[in-house]
Amino acid sequence: MDNVGREDKERGRVVFGVAGVVLAASLLFMRSQDPPGSAPPAPPLPDYDPCCAFPCAHQGVCTSLPNFNYTCDCTGTGFYGRNCEIPTWSMWLKEKLRPDPETVHTLITSHGWLWGVINRIPFLHTRIMTYVYLSRGDMVDSPPTYESDHHYITLDAYYNESYYGRALPPVPLHCPTPLGVAGHPDYPDVDELIKKVFLRRSFKPEPHDTNVLFQYYAQHFTHQFFRTDYKKGPHLTKGNGGVDVSNIYGLTEQDRRALRSYKDGKLRTQVINGEDFPPYLRDVEGISMDYPPGMPIPEDSKFALGHPFFALLPGLFAYSTIWVREHNRVCGELQRIHPHWDDERLYQTARLIVIGEVIKITIEDYVQHLSQYKLRLTFEPHLTHGTSFQYHNRIHAEFNHLYHWHPLIPDGLEVNGTNYALMDMAFSTAPIFKHGLDTFIHAMVNSRAGALTTRNHAHVLYPVLKRVIENGRQLRFQSLNAYRRRFGMRPFTNFVDLTGDPDLARDLEELYGDIEAVEYYIGLLAERPGPSITPLTMVNTGGPWSVKGLLANPICSPRYWKPSTFGGEEGFNIIKTASLEKLFCQNMRTGCKNIGFTLPPGTA
Amino acid sequence: MDNVGREDKERGRVVFGVAGVVLAASLLFMRSQDPPGSAPPAPPLPDYDPCCAFPCAHQGVCTSLPNFNYTCDCTGTGFYGRNCEIPTWSMWLKEKLRPDPETVHTLITSHGWLWGVINRIPFLHTRIMTYVYLSRGDMVDSPPTYESDHHYITLDAYYNESYYGRALPPVPLHCPTPLGVAGHPDYPDVDELIKKVFLRRSFKPEPHDTNVLFQYYAQHFTHQFFRTDYKKGPHLTKGNGGVDVSNIYGLTEQDRRALRSYKDGKLRTQVINGEDFPPYLRDVEGISMDYPPGMPIPEDSKFALGHPFFALLPGLFAYSTIWVREHNRVCGELQRIHPHWDDERLYQTARLIVIGEVIKITIEDYVQHLSQYKLRLTFEPHLTHGTSFQYHNRIHAEFNHLYHWHPLIPDGLEVNGTNYALMDMAFSTAPIFKHGLDTFIHAMVNSRAGALTTRNHAHVLYPVLKRVIENGRQLRFQSLNAYRRRFGMRPFTNFVDLTGDPDLARDLEELYGDIEAVEYYIGLLAERPGPSITPLTMVNTGGPWSVKGLLANPICSPRYWKPSTFGGEEGFNIIKTASLEKLFCQNMRTGCKNIGFTLPPGTA
Repeated sequence: MDNVGREDKERGRVVFGVAGVVLAASLLFMRSQDPPGSAPPAPPLPDYDPCCAFPCAHQGVCTSLPNFNYTCDCTGTGFYGRNCEIPTWSMWLKEKLRPDPETVHTLITSHGWLWGVINRIPFLHTRIMTYVYLSRGDMVDSPPTYESDHHYITLDAYYNESYYGRALPPVPLHCPTPLGVAGHPDYPDVDELIKKVFLRRSFKPEPHDTNVLFQYYAQHFTHQFFRTDYKKGPHLTKGNGGVDVSNIYGLTEQDRRALRSYKDGKLRTQVINGEDFPPYLRDVEGISMDYPPGMPIPEDSKFALGHPFFALLPGLFAYSTIWVREHNRVCGELQRIHPHWDDERLYQTARLIVIGEVIKITIEDYVQHLSQYKLRLTFEPHLTHGTSFQYHNRIHAEFNHLYHWHPLIPDGLEVNGTNYALMDMAFSTAPIFKHGLDTFIHAMVNSRAGALTTRNHAHVLYPVLKRVIENGRQLRFQSLNAYRRRFGMRPFTNFVDLTGDPDLARDLEELYGDIEAVEYYIGLLAERPGPSITPLTMVNTGGPWSVKGLLANPICSPRYWKPSTFGGEEGFNIIKTASLEKLFCQNMRTGCKNIGFTLPPGTA
Repeated sequence: MDNVGREDKERGRVVFGVAGVVLAASLLFMRSQDPPGSAPPAPPLPDYDPCCAFPCAHQGVCTSLPNFNYTCDCTGTGFYGRNCEIPTWSMWLKEKLRPDPETVHTLITSHGWLWGVINRIPFLHTRIMTYVYLSRGDMVDSPPTYESDHHYITLDAYYNESYYGRALPPVPLHCPTPLGVAGHPDYPDVDELIKKVFLRRSFKPEPHDTNVLFQYYAQHFTHQFFRTDYKKGPHLTKGNGGVDVSNIYGLTEQDRRALRSYKDGKLRTQVINGEDFPPYLRDVEGISMDYPPGMPIPEDSKFALGHPFFALLPGLFAYSTIWVREHNRVCGELQRIHPHWDDERLYQTARLIVIGEVIKITIEDYVQHLSQYKLRLTFEPHLTHGTSFQYHNRIHAEFNHLYHWHPLIPDGLEVNGTNYALMDMAFSTAPIFKHGLDTFIHAMVNSRAGALTTRNHAHVLYPVLKRVIENGRQLRFQSLNAYRRRFGMRPFTNFVDLTGDPDLARDLEELYGDIEAVEYYIGLLAERPGPSITPLTMVNTGGPWSVKGLLANPICSPRYWKPSTFGGEEGFNIIKTASLEKLFCQNMRTGCKNIGFTLPPGTA
């Protein structure tokens, strides 16, 4: 509760700053009504938007008025007063009862024995899962309210689905500093920032034994909805609003058709070394992959995949292959039950099952590992039925930025005794065909990922990182503390509070001057490590976007979530029993071992 | 309750029909397990999908199985049993307590004195409005489940927003008859159908004193979301999911930009005879209007409007002009309050206010008149907050078909003593500029619309009507009775029950053979007139789509519906006090009289 008090004080300082200016200006204005000559003329009012100081607390909406004045719309916040700073009685009680998110996080990531008990009491476990779904879902505005071109609500935020959504509107234009009123008048130099805060000095291993299979899952999974339209700008996307399995099947109808075999519902494959693989790019008309034009890549290591970006790395190719095999396996299962179904129905229904498997595995394997929660996370969409949960999602620009997890990537990968540097693997599937897919998968399982923290970006990723930071500036993201407040966390009070590391804190303080001026992405990574794979702010802002994106999927809605949607009980059960281990083990030829997101016990 | 009984019996007949066939087949199959030679060989099973008979009651989902078998998925229906025919105890009670929709409709459209009292008791009125919103909204699947290319759920129904949604999937392919198993093996001849059932013999006046201003409101309002992509097929749309005011501002960003003046937020206008009108088409780059290429239309009667179709008729041009003036008026109001706002913010905020006005007027003036409810309908989006209402909508193919209300159109219009036949007004704004906009508006107010019933289509609209019917067949709509069941109404038992008119009943019976085989659109119009402007089935199927479309608008959602979204309390109040009368009276130059959707008292 102390934290809340601290937050209030912090906000109070900003608020009183603005209020003070306004009050002073009003007094001067009143005096200027006196007979002429009796007082000096009023000094000019500041010429920037008073909303630059973000005076409205608790998600109140600031609207600037003439004469450096402003008003806060506190509707629906549970607070009132000029700056939405006074809680209603019920909100006051709610705030008092609301545990600090940091405490909750500590509780939920420790006390394994307690959670071991709770996980086994269905009634209790269900209640907690419902709470997780709804409380996280509630934190995401749905329908979306903001986009990156306006710092106020527009209809386009909803109707123009090319926009990424925004949890917080951009900092208004023409503010004294890039983050509003706090900090230096300019952003720190991006190259200096990268060198001081981001570049890997020596490899920092991931402390929770996370392996490279996890890193590639993250990349393969998220690229179905992070599809920034870089040609048009970092505020726009070519993708849909969430888990649409477009990374497996293709984003457009044209792509999807190109990848189908039109036989028994299956996707096109070819046999290489006795195993099913995706088809060569040269054999598939209408698909384009992001192979760099200048690079000498042999035609028989270019493949046609659901996502053009998945040409980039063999880990993505491995996941793509496994999912294509899984789709075809599911088609076989469906055909066994429904021998009279045509290709179209087998294809469409298998796609519905696969989307369910993706969500199930993402929640129960991937997010479970990512969060390090001792609470057993379960995929139970019916828990949201009949509530105010909205089955529609928009990907947010901040979620996309948050998910730049390049520190996870080690400098290379050892496959069966051969060392591959990162650049050796770029646009290459050679390691897979040299050693075999199964061997490559086991190499991912057995290799440690990097820690998701500062000073752990591989040097070859410099350009990627630089673009993320520059895009964040172009999108005028509000500060890390603004996002902390938005998602119910106390703002950081100083740089040591943020980093827990005096050396890093010194560097950041020099770069930013004010804790309220720390940029969003930079702050997310600079936060001191916690019990999860990512620092806490990333868990507590990414969590809501993630839960919302997974549970708002149409298949989770009451009219979809039933056996007939998935070809009957058998198809429904494929979803309900899906796991990462089964996904791999049912689709590897030579057998599987230790499939999971952690290094097998005893790995160095 | 008798009606429910009748429905059950009807369904029972169908169900037992199928079950009988299946049972017989199974018995024969069992017998064929006997030693060879001991029994005659089993006759071949029917080669069509057993789901053609729609055996699953209460929205259970039918899936065909091998050997002419099927299964019903009753999840979430409140019923169980092989055909979802047995209610759970709570559903049994609910069904017993649920009043017949026909009774409710009679009650709500009569007893004016009772409603006069209820309308004045805020607590009670609010409760009833909440019920209206939620019960109607609940009838629409959201997210959408079906589209017109598959008779089962696919992901595309959700992700491919080019599809119109479907409340009921198409009749499966390869059924014995076009409507499944009932009726003749072919649809009736469309020309014969039109001649016998649709063409106007003599003008049937609208019995509730509806005027032509109403007819044009319907046309102007609905074309913002009915934007069938005829080039690609009647199952596809170019539009968004509801009230997006694209009929005023343009559907694409390119159109919207072309129509803006970029000064004070206003739309482009020009002064003609001292009044503001939309700009000439020749003056606006990037807009295209649906003027037929061969027709000799002078360049100074071609205008650039938000919807290409609105070139068609002067009534649409009149509404377009009034809304452009209203937008610009609102910009003026906003600028008075926020003199420091730039063009962009004034434009965007005025657009948000105008969308609110459109919804307010549509509910409180238009739907109020359309339904003839004595309950005072109110626009109170906050009543849906905190419920399971989904703030997202998809336009349904059946809603589009239902809304072909051409019988409303009289054969001509008298403006200030001059008679204009329908074809005189095609692609012409002459009546407006000859007599003045205000005079034309008063002519719409003072002219009676046609009755929305059979045998009242103007002859010149033959091709439009023919296309509707043919498209309905291409989309394989289920029968009228299937839609009656889907929306909680008892199915009609015979043709007199449907039409209330023995002569029409005879014609229809000859054409269709079976009441279960009556086509959707044909049945909607053939139903006997009731207390509303449209027959009852149209009210009770169109109502849910309409309520859902209006209330699922993003501005109705909790994060939007507050003063700051609309530029503060003043802007919010423009919405809250909007009315049809104000819309016109504030934007007509010479004054307004009797603005409303009914003829002024005493009109012939």
